[in-house]
Amino acid sequence: MASTEGQVITCKAAVSYEPNKPLVIEDVQVAPPQAGEVRIKILFTALCHTDAYTWSGKDPEGLFPCILGHEAAGIVESVGEGVTEVKPGDHVIPCYQAECRECKFCKSGKTNLCGKVRTATGVGVMMNDRKSRFSVNGKPIYHFMGTSTFSQYTVVHDVSVAKIDPKAPLEKVCLLGCGVPTGLGAVWNTAKVEPGSIVAVFGLGTVGLAVAEGAKAAGASRIIGIDIDSKKFDTAKNFGVTEFINPKDHDKPIQQVIVDHTDGGVDYSFECIGNVSVMRAALECCHKGWGTSVIVGVAASGQEISTRPFQLVTGRVWKGTAFGGFKSRSQVPWLVDKYMKKEIKVDEYITHNLTLGEINKAFDLLHEGGCLRCVLAMD
Amino acid sequence: MASTEGQVITCKAAVSYEPNKPLVIEDVQVAPPQAGEVRIKILFTALCHTDAYTWSGKDPEGLFPCILGHEAAGIVESVGEGVTEVKPGDHVIPCYQAECRECKFCKSGKTNLCGKVRTATGVGVMMNDRKSRFSVNGKPIYHFMGTSTFSQYTVVHDVSVAKIDPKAPLEKVCLLGCGVPTGLGAVWNTAKVEPGSIVAVFGLGTVGLAVAEGAKAAGASRIIGIDIDSKKFDTAKNFGVTEFINPKDHDKPIQQVIVDHTDGGVDYSFECIGNVSVMRAALECCHKGWGTSVIVGVAASGQEISTRPFQLVTGRVWKGTAFGGFKSRSQVPWLVDKYMKKEIKVDEYITHNLTLGEINKAFDLLHEGGCLRCVLAMD
Repeated sequence: MASTEGQVITCKAAVSYEPNKPLVIEDVQVAPPQAGEVRIKILFTALCHTDAYTWSGKDPEGLFPCILGHEAAGIVESVGEGVTEVKPGDHVIPCYQAECRECKFCKSGKTNLCGKVRTATGVGVMMNDRKSRFSVNGKPIYHFMGTSTFSQYTVVHDVSVAKIDPKAPLEKVCLLGCGVPTGLGAVWNTAKVEPGSIVAVFGLGTVGLAVAEGAKAAGASRIIGIDIDSKKFDTAKNFGVTEFINPKDHDKPIQQVIVDHTDGGVDYSFECIGNVSVMRAALECCHKGWGTSVIVGVAASGQEISTRPFQLVTGRVWKGTAFGGFKSRSQVPWLVDKYMKKEIKVDEYITHNLTLGEINKAFDLLHEGGCLRCVLAMD
Repeated sequence: MASTEGQVITCKAAVSYEPNKPLVIEDVQVAPPQAGEVRIKILFTALCHTDAYTWSGKDPEGLFPCILGHEAAGIVESVGEGVTEVKPGDHVIPCYQAECRECKFCKSGKTNLCGKVRTATGVGVMMNDRKSRFSVNGKPIYHFMGTSTFSQYTVVHDVSVAKIDPKAPLEKVCLLGCGVPTGLGAVWNTAKVEPGSIVAVFGLGTVGLAVAEGAKAAGASRIIGIDIDSKKFDTAKNFGVTEFINPKDHDKPIQQVIVDHTDGGVDYSFECIGNVSVMRAALECCHKGWGTSVIVGVAASGQEISTRPFQLVTGRVWKGTAFGGFKSRSQVPWLVDKYMKKEIKVDEYITHNLTLGEINKAFDLLHEGGCLRCVLAMD
């Protein structure tokens, strides 16, 4: 690998030139990492709904042309000046949520929302020179979420790289870059579900199933899965869901159905869809006095949640979570270790395997009920 | 007092016959307490905005004719069958929030919202026979909030009576029946403000000032008071407010003004008005990652709060509180003791003293900026 150090690398990447148009596999030039940056050879990347959301053009902060992708695993190719925590050859997971351990957020002890590189990653560039490391024929291509993993090589900030056990299978643990930790962490870090709790999970995709898995591990006594696709229940049982409710089977508002089923409401609820009406239902199905609802899904821009304030005055709590509250660099390696010890599932979320060249087909799959995660091999 | 035991007592009370019409001082018949009930000679009662809200007719659950009032102190006159925790002669504070120590809520360890007598107090009657103990010339008059303290004698459930130190001055500690505990408890029990925190208090009435006092006691480093009446700042300083912002002095939304003043937002905010737009501002002035907003004010029926879900996903928490999360029977006596030890203020909230016969004047005062609490002597 030393042969490419300090050189521009030309490799394949899936470039999104315009919203809602097929991605184009291009020869992309990837500049060497500058100070505080790491260039990673991506070996496997999965697709997540946030990629599809930005690709769709509905994300007002979406910038084009760009290289999407944020749930991946790879090997460090080279590092820029001053980078000490990883070196070429290290196995890593890029982390869209950075962890610098120095900023107000990292030092607060109260949040994982590091602010160190946000002003750059939010606008598709690198901090050092406020420019992109990607280009096609000299024209810059924006970064995405500070990760841009739909490329055989990417450049990320050193605060956005988790070094993991080299024995971990990268084709599996790439999922620990987003969806699975988001669901597990929503339960363990944000809600802090206790043994015996009654839990409701709205939306049984990857994140919702990871919530169910996390709730089961936390000792929840009942885990109620809610989805408009009843076919999902069979899979959901394997992740810990004990009961299934399809809102289409009921005339009453779903929150009322759940309150009736649970003698007053659930102890914890999780919205894993990104639908503001469902977010309201998730809050209102919580038990008076203590029920806590966590928003995990990402709503479309401009949409708002609402409820009667009485819901909160009578003891319900409304929260949200990003990356499940996990401190990325510190805790992604811990999650990888838990997977290696078979304490958390990963393989079970992978329903499809394709290659980078088939990425447009992978986007289509994402909108089909039967797909949880599609992992792309980058070669 | 033994002479009235078991007898109907005829006494003076302020009866609300119709919404928004002056209260009428009437001779009211107060039936003896039945099993599990306590008849109290009320000596002092204060007025609170919740009385005014129901009186105004805006409360859809308001029932007329009724006897309002829920912030008071008195002496037990007699007790019904099976009442063991208080006896005639005990000094007490009636508690609109009951505490039975037996129901799902009381046993949860997570809330003060006892459910034991709610199905009766919510509809203006007593549990035992689903009837009122008040009548005028044989026509029943509804109870209010399970307390009805605008009467020289009232009947309450035994789970709604806090026995207090007989040395405590009833003309002062009557305030510990609602507003002051609500503010202190919002800080201590619901938000759990830590030393060094930056706090914003919206609305500098009795509850808002009690929030400031509670925050100061909790070691908050900055306590920002927000009110559209700048005259309130002088008083507010005595309760711990360190900075004052009048939204009328700014063109920008108040949440933005506060975020700018605090390098990113406050750690805790409290809405003590009951205005849903202010509730939104209170949430949105909180710091990303950890800011917690507590709704303390009671909004008008049918009104809704709203915000972008992004506010919660990026770490803000939205909560509410009722009676400050205090367990009434257990903790009101503790608050009285704290007052006796001069650890909390009470006298400073009393701006006016009148008699029961002047109650309509007292309602007028409640809407004037200079009035915090008006205490009525019942004789």
